[in-house]
Amino acid sequence: MGVAATVTDGPKGKPSLVDLTTLVGDDLQAVNAVIIARMQSPVAMIPQLAGHVVAAGGKRLRPMLTLASAQLCGYRGRRHIGLAASVEFIHTATLLHDDVVDDSELRRGLASANAVWGNKASVLVGDFLFSRAFELMVEDGSLEVLRILSRASSVIAEGEVMQLMTANDTGTDEAAYLDVIRAKTAELFAAACEIGAVVADRPAADAAALQSYGSNFGMAFQLVDDLLDYSARQITLGKTIGDDFREGKITLPVVLAYQRGDEDERRFWRRTLEDLDQAPGDLDHAMELLKRHGALADTVAMARHYGDLAVQALATLPAGAERRIMAELVDFCVERAF
Amino acid sequence: MGVAATVTDGPKGKPSLVDLTTLVGDDLQAVNAVIIARMQSPVAMIPQLAGHVVAAGGKRLRPMLTLASAQLCGYRGRRHIGLAASVEFIHTATLLHDDVVDDSELRRGLASANAVWGNKASVLVGDFLFSRAFELMVEDGSLEVLRILSRASSVIAEGEVMQLMTANDTGTDEAAYLDVIRAKTAELFAAACEIGAVVADRPAADAAALQSYGSNFGMAFQLVDDLLDYSARQITLGKTIGDDFREGKITLPVVLAYQRGDEDERRFWRRTLEDLDQAPGDLDHAMELLKRHGALADTVAMARHYGDLAVQALATLPAGAERRIMAELVDFCVERAF
Repeated sequence: MGVAATVTDGPKGKPSLVDLTTLVGDDLQAVNAVIIARMQSPVAMIPQLAGHVVAAGGKRLRPMLTLASAQLCGYRGRRHIGLAASVEFIHTATLLHDDVVDDSELRRGLASANAVWGNKASVLVGDFLFSRAFELMVEDGSLEVLRILSRASSVIAEGEVMQLMTANDTGTDEAAYLDVIRAKTAELFAAACEIGAVVADRPAADAAALQSYGSNFGMAFQLVDDLLDYSARQITLGKTIGDDFREGKITLPVVLAYQRGDEDERRFWRRTLEDLDQAPGDLDHAMELLKRHGALADTVAMARHYGDLAVQALATLPAGAERRIMAELVDFCVERAF
Repeated sequence: MGVAATVTDGPKGKPSLVDLTTLVGDDLQAVNAVIIARMQSPVAMIPQLAGHVVAAGGKRLRPMLTLASAQLCGYRGRRHIGLAASVEFIHTATLLHDDVVDDSELRRGLASANAVWGNKASVLVGDFLFSRAFELMVEDGSLEVLRILSRASSVIAEGEVMQLMTANDTGTDEAAYLDVIRAKTAELFAAACEIGAVVADRPAADAAALQSYGSNFGMAFQLVDDLLDYSARQITLGKTIGDDFREGKITLPVVLAYQRGDEDERRFWRRTLEDLDQAPGDLDHAMELLKRHGALADTVAMARHYGDLAVQALATLPAGAERRIMAELVDFCVERAF
């Protein structure tokens, strides 16, 4: 497909994002231009607050998935640009509402928008970006894309509410945890990939394969993300370590350690995560328990499992640089765990 | 158009909603059924919280506008049902986010959802309903309707942010106040009416006339609503009087009284609305000042002005029971002010 991409190793010989960035770089610049242009409003606080979140950057992982999927499908037009921006707007709106919800103080290493502008503004600017996402889809004009992304949006909201219901509940089991991340994270990854096939007008089987890739990749991504909250590596990513712990969020490492712990340990988890009665040293103790019970290792294993499914889902799609890079991207994200 | 509607006076010989309810009653029952069906989710908290807000009822004014507009345009199909439900979902999502924003404790005479379930759940269930609104539009399949309502949604969010920026700012002038209510209220009224013409496949001039009716009606409606927050009649509507005052919201009555007040009075407004330093008796004093400066009377006059524009906008549309009832509805809402 005419893209000369070479495998470039990351600093430690590990997979990196360099290939993906090379593959979709020009398109991503165009997406960023659309994002900047369409977050404008005569209401000054909107571009200020949205700019804080959007320009802080982030990985732009979800729009890159749309771009790469469209390229993999041999798409040659421009529709994927606006739709990738739409995907990022949905994600940004979710982040804004999530920060309000979680009272987070840091996002991507900077003060979160709600800490600077207040919860009120974060909710409303999130609503604005969400609406803008739909305006972009309407301009594109595909009812199929609108169907995919409006469904994804309501599933994401369901996932966020499920997460709220499992928060501070140490009785949460693995199945409930997986339901939450499938809805709140994997659904948008899946939709971002699927619409790449839709704009390229590919058969339903290709759309389904990309949907499956995105969904399984999203699961792996969130598992690693949840793991990293108990990893010193988080600090190098500009995030506070132990955010989930302090909020009493129930993620897979905790689910496993709780199930495998004795009554003393379970009392510890209930005090810290249910009652949010936390003292200095509790996070260290939590990390020690996670390690003792192999909870981190098993979370990585689960991430690998979903990562493998994601890569396998690509098998029926055209071989080439795009497919190879999308497979390596999964490895890159799973390798973040180390 | 085959609808035999009789003018039925309200209890005190004033206009009532009886005619409108007669006109759209069967359709409204169908809309309510769609609302109940589509707010369901396997995530139990969603129908619980949404049901609290949706079933609490409210006037269903916006979906009734869609139904009446479609009927006025001679529409005979069923598409207006789902779209009216979509309009109500957008409105409900806005209410949920508005309650979070304003820390309201009462909504339609009941505890607001955020007071019962918390801000977190209100934000997320609002997001769910907003997404559901778009799913309903996608099922309808009209890109024109999607264009109108996605645009309305982003304008509403802009209006809510504008309102946030003018809150506690006694320097807000009449023009800024009107910009806020045009965006946060009139836009959805306008869209609700316009889509009635779109489903009926009427010429653009009819859609524009209904859009103008809805927009001007929305202005009148919000002016009266803001007035009522300083009126004892509010209590009979199940709302707390003085909500806006306690939050330091700057509405037209206050804008006028501030501009017309002496330096002592302005100090009073700044202390109570900017510093939110309020003591018992302040609300009474505020109401006394509004009365002294004719601020309430002039707000009613402004509402009448927009109400007249709304009725005039109907002139080019087919005469009949529907048009008469839609005109009377405006009168009913303005008469609420007394």
